[in-house]
Amino acid sequence: MTPTSKPAADRFPSGSAAFPHRHLLGITGLQNHEILYILDQAETWVALNRSGAAKHDDRLAGLTMINAFFENSTRTLLSFEIAGKRLGADVVNMHASQSSIKKGETLIDTAMTLNAMRADAIVIRHASSGAVQLISDKVDCPVLNAGDGTHEHPTQALLDALTIQRRKGEIAGLTITICGDVLHSRVARSNIICLTTLGARVRVVSPPALMPAGIEDFGVTAFHDFDAALDGSDVVMMLRLQNERMQGDFIPSPREYFHLYGLDERRLALAKPDALVMHPGPMNRGVEIASSVADLAGRSAITEQVEMGVAVRMACLDILTRKARAVEGWA
Amino acid sequence: MTPTSKPAADRFPSGSAAFPHRHLLGITGLQNHEILYILDQAETWVALNRSGAAKHDDRLAGLTMINAFFENSTRTLLSFEIAGKRLGADVVNMHASQSSIKKGETLIDTAMTLNAMRADAIVIRHASSGAVQLISDKVDCPVLNAGDGTHEHPTQALLDALTIQRRKGEIAGLTITICGDVLHSRVARSNIICLTTLGARVRVVSPPALMPAGIEDFGVTAFHDFDAALDGSDVVMMLRLQNERMQGDFIPSPREYFHLYGLDERRLALAKPDALVMHPGPMNRGVEIASSVADLAGRSAITEQVEMGVAVRMACLDILTRKARAVEGWA
Amino acid sequence: MTPTSKPAADRFPSGSAAFPHRHLLGITGLQNHEILYILDQAETWVALNRSGAAKHDDRLAGLTMINAFFENSTRTLLSFEIAGKRLGADVVNMHASQSSIKKGETLIDTAMTLNAMRADAIVIRHASSGAVQLISDKVDCPVLNAGDGTHEHPTQALLDALTIQRRKGEIAGLTITICGDVLHSRVARSNIICLTTLGARVRVVSPPALMPAGIEDFGVTAFHDFDAALDGSDVVMMLRLQNERMQGDFIPSPREYFHLYGLDERRLALAKPDALVMHPGPMNRGVEIASSVADLAGRSAITEQVEMGVAVRMACLDILTRKARAVEGWA
Repeated sequence: MTPTSKPAADRFPSGSAAFPHRHLLGITGLQNHEILYILDQAETWVALNRSGAAKHDDRLAGLTMINAFFENSTRTLLSFEIAGKRLGADVVNMHASQSSIKKGETLIDTAMTLNAMRADAIVIRHASSGAVQLISDKVDCPVLNAGDGTHEHPTQALLDALTIQRRKGEIAGLTITICGDVLHSRVARSNIICLTTLGARVRVVSPPALMPAGIEDFGVTAFHDFDAALDGSDVVMMLRLQNERMQGDFIPSPREYFHLYGLDERRLALAKPDALVMHPGPMNRGVEIASSVADLAGRSAITEQVEMGVAVRMACLDILTRKARAVEGWA
Repeated sequence: MTPTSKPAADRFPSGSAAFPHRHLLGITGLQNHEILYILDQAETWVALNRSGAAKHDDRLAGLTMINAFFENSTRTLLSFEIAGKRLGADVVNMHASQSSIKKGETLIDTAMTLNAMRADAIVIRHASSGAVQLISDKVDCPVLNAGDGTHEHPTQALLDALTIQRRKGEIAGLTITICGDVLHSRVARSNIICLTTLGARVRVVSPPALMPAGIEDFGVTAFHDFDAALDGSDVVMMLRLQNERMQGDFIPSPREYFHLYGLDERRLALAKPDALVMHPGPMNRGVEIASSVADLAGRSAITEQVEMGVAVRMACLDILTRKARAVEGWA
Repeated sequence: MTPTSKPAADRFPSGSAAFPHRHLLGITGLQNHEILYILDQAETWVALNRSGAAKHDDRLAGLTMINAFFENSTRTLLSFEIAGKRLGADVVNMHASQSSIKKGETLIDTAMTLNAMRADAIVIRHASSGAVQLISDKVDCPVLNAGDGTHEHPTQALLDALTIQRRKGEIAGLTITICGDVLHSRVARSNIICLTTLGARVRVVSPPALMPAGIEDFGVTAFHDFDAALDGSDVVMMLRLQNERMQGDFIPSPREYFHLYGLDERRLALAKPDALVMHPGPMNRGVEIASSVADLAGRSAITEQVEMGVAVRMACLDILTRKARAVEGWA
């Protein structure tokens, strides 16, 4: 299912030149070939995860991975935790509700504490944009951003890219429409950067109040009319509508939102006949997406996105810890 | 301590015929010999767990086990988690309080998410009867019910049966009295089905308002007078009184309840001289059971029940994953 | 960095005589050489933890370690969890918020439940002084006190001692000043006992209302004037000011507290020129300690304390499970 039959050695720089970054703080700053390298590596883990009852690899044995989630999350935490455990790491979770930050500790002190425990990889989710960058400056090990405020959620964009690539062969040249609360969405932001870097034509659709000013500077085309945006789309990526946006300030009502920006079967028919349907989850069925579309066999890739999430996170953990593991070429 | 000295190969069908079920959703539908097979297999794990500092087996290495608890639980979650880890699985817990269901995701979507992460066993506790069945229909791996609403709690019934069998030799022919809030108790329900299937004479005792209509259809004898029920009992199984039942609707007061339905030494003397005392925990001492009875040496099996819980859950995890692990005869 | 070059075999009794205790409930009752033995053993784990990507040892493989935290904690729980996982144990956490104690179960019943699951080590944090002792009386395995009420927090004292020893060479003869809410601090209490046992001269500084009556009976010198206490100090150990003490009963205001008992650069200059600055964390910067002092390179040992915490806990887990693991000489 990979888009090319050339061996990886011919497609990517060798050793750490393939991914010369210490952290994964965002998609911003990643080169086209670096993103493709992660997707390439993730294929190994897709295969392992599908191999049945032996989906474990011990390459991270002896390493300590800390999941520091300052904001609640089920899927992303589970996905990272499974990724780390399948690679053999000693995985520990720090939940916000138990956290010293409630006792007034600064974020930097928390970072230095995790570092002093000799973590080999720290995965962070935080409600504040930039918090993950701040922590990465203070620690000696790779930091992976699991979502920070309205900034970035890079592994989500990578898993989305992997899903699209596996279904469509190549992302360059595709028309991909992202619809929803673009203003507040780190998923949208990371996806826009990722997909434009990979050569897709990206359209964003949003109610006027939820469209960021200057969004065209990201190389995307902005629409307020969802029907118009769908025409010719290869992929339709729906964003989750946060409950806190539905209180009347931004959205008149969930019903009204669905009427204007929900993806139903009539609307999906406006896209290409084989257009892929995506959603980062958890879905509000009937709010941003009709149940019949979410479950449309052959078209909806929503559960596949979840599956790719584990594989992409395994790839990121593997790549970012190679230097510490003294993998040849990654010094 | 097993009730028979015949080797397992002579007592049970070979391979997957011994337990031809994909899930463990309840005791309902299990044959007598299938229940006995689980108990037989659990003996291996009782022995391992008592073997001191080497109580680990790697047969589930490479498998991912997800404990998805939508309802709080300490003992059952700990017991399943220890069972999975002792068998070498990669174990992750999903707590309700962190869960996407709070964000409006449907239960089926949560099930499909867990499935997409390529779980090899999912253990579920849920406040709604039937939720576990619903999830099991949507996933590719074995589902183990860790308690759903007022429906079933099969591993509790199995650990109770194992405890009784080890103490009394054989369950068939025993008189077993279950006392408490039978109406709302999944523990009572699973135990009634399990123990009658194994050939015990089961008596249930309950305040009139907490006795299910038509309980006799389960093959048990209903009592409202605890003293009368105790006469000739080999086992007295007390149910936990939920705090929410003590608010006056069902129970006049905890003190009144203890007077009518609490197990104290006077009452225990009405049962057989060697009658076993059981309680699924956590106990309300002085409400449904007197402290002196709960701690009665040689008679109370309450901590042994906890011990058997880990062993029974190890047996269930082992058996249900044999197909995925391609164990011979379990294709 | 160890204070002596003599081999351990010459400095400590052999086998279990080096540490003939079943539990670690407190520093009270430990001999000077027993404390030093733990510190000596911890050096092995400091080295392993610093060894990069292979910081894992399997000596606790097959053992089940339960962290039963009845009081919230991030650092201490993470530290113990990492310690256990790095030693290969099957580690499970029991959080208070999920706990059966909310359902009315007694602490002893919880203890007996954990024991029945065949734990090999139980780590307990509890809000009540003495709760850990109570539990240790009821279980068959080693119990480690992770902080109980205002009683003891022995691993904190041990990690502090290890930090001092590594920086200062030997603790005997040092002048160590502990400042803060001595009355309510289990950290202060364990440190006072530990450091005086090791031969340090300990000074305690506290607002009058927060100084325990009869503190001199512990062999320390009490001060109310922080400046006076600092004179000649080799180590200044600040205590965390609990938020609940800042409500006006004990402390007029955080600002006033800092003025009288906060450690700033002016005050630190009153101690010896190379005096070490310590804090158990999490810090209230600007309340009990100035940020500039907390971060003072070469003087602040605060993050090193965190690092030593993991090593000391690994040492304690190793030592206390030797009997169960049938290590020679530890029968």
